[in-house]
Amino acid sequence: MTDIIHKPPNISRHFPLLAELKNYGRNDFSSDLFAGVITAILLVPQGIAYAILAGLPPQLGLYASILPPVAYALLGTSRTLSVGPVSIAAIMVASVLATPEVSVLGNPVQNSLILSAEVGVILLCMAVLRMGGLVNFISHPVLAGFTSGAALLIIASQLPQLAGLKPPDCGLNADCYRTWLDSANTYTLMMGAGCLSLLVFFGKPLTVLLKHARVNLTLLTAISKCGPLLTVVMATVAVAYFNLGQQQVALVGQVPVGLPELAIGFIEAKPAYILLPDSAFIAFIAYVESIAIAKVTANLRGQKIVPNKELIALGVANLVAAVSGGMPVAGGFSRTMVNFSAGARTQMAMIVAAFILLLAVIFFSPWFERIPKAALAAIILMAIYRLVRVRHIINTWRYDRGDGIAELVTLIGVLILGIEEGITLGIILTIGSQLRKNSQPHIAVVGGDAGGQVMQSSKHSVETWHHLLLVRIEESITFANIHSIEEYLETELKKKPNTRHVVLICTSVNDIDATALEALGHFNRSLQQAGKSLNISEAKIKVLDKLQKTDFLKQMQPGQVFARTEDAAKELG
Amino acid sequence: MTDIIHKPPNISRHFPLLAELKNYGRNDFSSDLFAGVITAILLVPQGIAYAILAGLPPQLGLYASILPPVAYALLGTSRTLSVGPVSIAAIMVASVLATPEVSVLGNPVQNSLILSAEVGVILLCMAVLRMGGLVNFISHPVLAGFTSGAALLIIASQLPQLAGLKPPDCGLNADCYRTWLDSANTYTLMMGAGCLSLLVFFGKPLTVLLKHARVNLTLLTAISKCGPLLTVVMATVAVAYFNLGQQQVALVGQVPVGLPELAIGFIEAKPAYILLPDSAFIAFIAYVESIAIAKVTANLRGQKIVPNKELIALGVANLVAAVSGGMPVAGGFSRTMVNFSAGARTQMAMIVAAFILLLAVIFFSPWFERIPKAALAAIILMAIYRLVRVRHIINTWRYDRGDGIAELVTLIGVLILGIEEGITLGIILTIGSQLRKNSQPHIAVVGGDAGGQVMQSSKHSVETWHHLLLVRIEESITFANIHSIEEYLETELKKKPNTRHVVLICTSVNDIDATALEALGHFNRSLQQAGKSLNISEAKIKVLDKLQKTDFLKQMQPGQVFARTEDAAKELG
Repeated sequence: MTDIIHKPPNISRHFPLLAELKNYGRNDFSSDLFAGVITAILLVPQGIAYAILAGLPPQLGLYASILPPVAYALLGTSRTLSVGPVSIAAIMVASVLATPEVSVLGNPVQNSLILSAEVGVILLCMAVLRMGGLVNFISHPVLAGFTSGAALLIIASQLPQLAGLKPPDCGLNADCYRTWLDSANTYTLMMGAGCLSLLVFFGKPLTVLLKHARVNLTLLTAISKCGPLLTVVMATVAVAYFNLGQQQVALVGQVPVGLPELAIGFIEAKPAYILLPDSAFIAFIAYVESIAIAKVTANLRGQKIVPNKELIALGVANLVAAVSGGMPVAGGFSRTMVNFSAGARTQMAMIVAAFILLLAVIFFSPWFERIPKAALAAIILMAIYRLVRVRHIINTWRYDRGDGIAELVTLIGVLILGIEEGITLGIILTIGSQLRKNSQPHIAVVGGDAGGQVMQSSKHSVETWHHLLLVRIEESITFANIHSIEEYLETELKKKPNTRHVVLICTSVNDIDATALEALGHFNRSLQQAGKSLNISEAKIKVLDKLQKTDFLKQMQPGQVFARTEDAAKELG
Repeated sequence: MTDIIHKPPNISRHFPLLAELKNYGRNDFSSDLFAGVITAILLVPQGIAYAILAGLPPQLGLYASILPPVAYALLGTSRTLSVGPVSIAAIMVASVLATPEVSVLGNPVQNSLILSAEVGVILLCMAVLRMGGLVNFISHPVLAGFTSGAALLIIASQLPQLAGLKPPDCGLNADCYRTWLDSANTYTLMMGAGCLSLLVFFGKPLTVLLKHARVNLTLLTAISKCGPLLTVVMATVAVAYFNLGQQQVALVGQVPVGLPELAIGFIEAKPAYILLPDSAFIAFIAYVESIAIAKVTANLRGQKIVPNKELIALGVANLVAAVSGGMPVAGGFSRTMVNFSAGARTQMAMIVAAFILLLAVIFFSPWFERIPKAALAAIILMAIYRLVRVRHIINTWRYDRGDGIAELVTLIGVLILGIEEGITLGIILTIGSQLRKNSQPHIAVVGGDAGGQVMQSSKHSVETWHHLLLVRIEESITFANIHSIEEYLETELKKKPNTRHVVLICTSVNDIDATALEALGHFNRSLQQAGKSLNISEAKIKVLDKLQKTDFLKQMQPGQVFARTEDAAKELG
């Protein structure tokens, strides 16, 4: 112990990456370099696509892919998590910016920067308050239902884009849908279909082909991950060559040249106040999703995620995003898996990727303007469809009906009520059912054998007494279960009307809260009025200490406190 | 059992009062008659006072005291609960009507009737959904903190009325307070002080005097409970005699003569929609407070309250209130105690009281108009000050710090944030801390003695094994505790790096939910990668059945499922 205390404050304790770099070799770097390049190839189109998905100019996604991942790389405990713009946070930002309250504030860019800043501050506050355990409030089925629902919303917003359509607003009017479909743009549709086919081809089919051609694994990975970039390049070239901008094919549009300026001028009191609850939701989801993804890859390599350090790392990453003009960031599922399977060993890979993004922003911005939105929609669709987990819903439903209902209700809630409302509903549902389960008492009637040993009567064939009711309470007595415990005792007393003494065996009772104490007081009085006594046995010292502060033990007399249940059985039985 | 099944549907099952009237004798009725008269004497001034407290015309309180108590009398399971206008619901109605959202709707009378109707419907819905257990979500400290806070708000609103002042709106401006005090009305102040003194005298001092004069107990009760009525009568006479209405002493003002008309024309979609969340709060509080009061008196006489029937009775009472032009109703603390201590045996007492109210409304309405508001404020203050339970806060704080904090936070929350916000805060706080306690695993490492018996290693001096880790999980494994269980296991594994087999003893595991199953799957995989195995022993049949629906048990291989932990110890140890 002493050598820990006398150790000088170690800077690498706060920067996990520095610790890893101590034993960092050439092989490690070449792995990270390769993974970083591959991830950057995905990050460029995703950055632009998610900004547009959020209803923001493309640079907010690009800027969010440069400094924030570097901040996370220095502070985070996951070695492979790819932090940057993500689809779920993007759709949440889109839904916040679209609410009437927020849209009247004007300037969506400013609002988005405020969201990033607030998400960062909230995550840091959570870290200070050690609220990393907050993830425990959300069950996997609720999270999966939420993700599936959000993914379906994204699909619904992106599918029409493949044909250059806006999302329909027709309700059940068939004619309206017909008119809507007629407004599809043929060039865009061809573009969208082409991009989607290319992306599908770059999935399984290409891998199978390359394996047949005995291409080595590294090259195979590199080629198959280039799908999105190649799609974007080919689509952009087609736009330039056929001059599709004239054919009303929607393009990304102007992207500022060069680097973002660091600034905090966007902060303003009124929008900051209005956006605060939404920021809290985005922060919560960003944290929960990032932790979940980080754990998956860490588990696969036997590494460890430290929730509180993740809060700090994600908080700083979002603050950095805000200051450098980026949208809110989190750990992205598809990118992290790409980074991981491309062989990333440390966060150095993400620093490489960020560097490439930086170069891209400096040198290729003019090119980004001609990327057709349909190509980006195709990339989003390919990244997102996996998140609609139908099989997961079926499995959950089969395994545990309650969890299945929670997953389905969350999904439907997200689709019908809205993103924040849906997940709130799911969390309330699971916490409520958890509390209901808690309120069922863990409790057992106890009997004795000839030798005076006491044992649970439902498990062992022991005699119970005529005038004595021994009941073992097997958990702390609190407001959540005291009602059920009372009911249980009353039922037992009705079954055995000759009972003169009730003994509560408190071996497993770690605490009796104020509500339970009051209720036990009432119970004691009603027993006394019926000429019966309440007794306690095997209570823990700390519980007795608490009771001694009140006059409960005095009011209990002639009821007694027994150290051993056997003594109670001997004296009262 | 069969005779229960073959019994003809019994109407008195739904009307507890009818069942009681079967053995109802002359003595019972004379007791109820006396208690009814005494309660009515309190009900008249309280009815008017609470309507004014809620910011409503006096008849809304009077009408709420006629048909609603009769409805409750027929359906309720408490024999002494006095249902009618109550102070806490009144201040909640006042606070709802004062919000900008609601006040723009105009017509507070209509809004109040909508509140009554919605409270009724919500309570009936809760009955259908068997949500009587909802009271378990609120701990006594939170309820006590809420009641104290609401009582303080009422005191703050009534104290200035004793001097004919409006509540001050001065912040920290001392001059403003001076001007405010100067605007006090001397006549009103004298009236208020006089009424308060009279009421105080009718408390302890008069009882002591009468006891000295050897007055018999019934007469003593009757006299001492007449304080409020006498106060109102004397104040009204003083108003008439000295023509105080001319001296700007605030009076109750016009009360319609005769009976309320039954009507449902007040229902309107927009205000109904806006008021719904507030109605839910009032319904919840009305139910929780009524149940708490009903239980106190029922416990004293060894009677039983049936939560679901209370929901129905209170629901119908509120619907009746709405239709007959009354404000929302609940069980009132002071009136119920008066009714109880005046010797009420059944709800017949409340029917008597309602009848007296009916006569009062028909014949005395013109008299009510001259009641000075200061007299009513004095009555409210005398009824309410007992609800500020300083001693309770101190005791709770001493007994259980967490509960003490919850009580204080709820109280302060009610005062600063508002009534609904305060209680929400308190509930979230207690449920949160409950969940945190739940997340701490009940878990123990188990060892074995020479004879092969396995026992908890921290309690018995038994040997644990080098290659075998036996861990008993002592509760269901769910999303709330799986994280802590995982951490516990990882810590134990770090302590014993030579472990080759982990056995989870599941004797007390009633359920493994979907989140826990996924996490156990990850845990199993990480064990296997380290060349270790995961095993299960003594799992319940229903848990195994659930696991069999998944491929968890297959993935666990070569880990096994043991029926007895001793077998696992023998084979793996």
